[in-house]
Amino acid sequence: MSESPLLIELIEALRCMPGIGRKSAQRITYHLLQRNRDGARKLSHSLLEAMDKIGHCERCRTFSEEPVCELCKSGKRDRSLLCVVESPADVYIVEEAGFRGLYFVLMGHLSPLDRIGPEELGLTGLETLLDEGDITEVILATSTTVEGEATAHFISEMVHARQLKVSRIAHGVPMGGELEYVDSSTLSHALAGRREI
Amino acid sequence: MSESPLLIELIEALRCMPGIGRKSAQRITYHLLQRNRDGARKLSHSLLEAMDKIGHCERCRTFSEEPVCELCKSGKRDRSLLCVVESPADVYIVEEAGFRGLYFVLMGHLSPLDRIGPEELGLTGLETLLDEGDITEVILATSTTVEGEATAHFISEMVHARQLKVSRIAHGVPMGGELEYVDSSTLSHALAGRREI
Repeated sequence: MSESPLLIELIEALRCMPGIGRKSAQRITYHLLQRNRDGARKLSHSLLEAMDKIGHCERCRTFSEEPVCELCKSGKRDRSLLCVVESPADVYIVEEAGFRGLYFVLMGHLSPLDRIGPEELGLTGLETLLDEGDITEVILATSTTVEGEATAHFISEMVHARQLKVSRIAHGVPMGGELEYVDSSTLSHALAGRREI
Repeated sequence: MSESPLLIELIEALRCMPGIGRKSAQRITYHLLQRNRDGARKLSHSLLEAMDKIGHCERCRTFSEEPVCELCKSGKRDRSLLCVVESPADVYIVEEAGFRGLYFVLMGHLSPLDRIGPEELGLTGLETLLDEGDITEVILATSTTVEGEATAHFISEMVHARQLKVSRIAHGVPMGGELEYVDSSTLSHALAGRREI
């Protein structure tokens, strides 16, 4: 055995991160010990702080260290548009695309086998938001998996019941994508969703 | 701004790890917050412990939380062979290859421009080991860069002065490697180092 117990422990602990296998963990461990102990101490502190203090926004359910997140509190957002996404990472992506309405984060999708039903997705919270009266359109940006589609369908019925507009983001050929590399299911969506120009 | 300050801080802190860019750091942050807060807390603890408690073995200079490392203390090693490597990660690699002697870890290589001389590489410690009288052969396994070769040359003179055997690990075509993919400098080493069979 050529490695000290604490070193082995750190290598194992690093593997809690997605995409980090034994080799990468080892490389990271040696790098930090040899060249960046201060960075590693800072990381240790940041990890603990984040895990202990970051909870969920009580309105939109995204990650937030305050009871209500920055986006929900902001006066600069279009409060008539609500985009429903599956995870906080999706909020970041939709923001990057230039959306300026509000969000609702499901933190998952309907999955009866895993016992994830409307309650686990906080859909009563979504109903409360809809009943406040500001929202006129709900945009469903759940993923295109079977579960994501089922979740979108479930929520669309909830929104329809309130006589509000509901839409699904377009699925089709990605920008810059060549037809050759697009799978047939995406292409059939693109054909069905064609628009007159 | 769609991300909370603590979240942004963690994403930045994760980037102290080699090979982790902004995208990976973000993915790791969301994953840990959403699925593995306990793993992240454990990682935080391990990082701090390792950075604070792991120092260097006073004999061979590899990483160790004890004054003398397991390998140097072990009674099962061949104390007549000493393998000189550049970093603790190299010790692990040479161990895997089945070497059962002792090590000396330079923690770098000679590099006058970076003000790394014999003193920074702990070569007086190496001299002390050589003068103890157990070692009969020193194997130089520094890297094949200009600095690595210069370091090997410097140490070989030190060892020669004590009338001890000194050797350099073989450089040539990697096992399983096809000639087609081998660079010419490696191949010229392989030719010069040919052995009669």
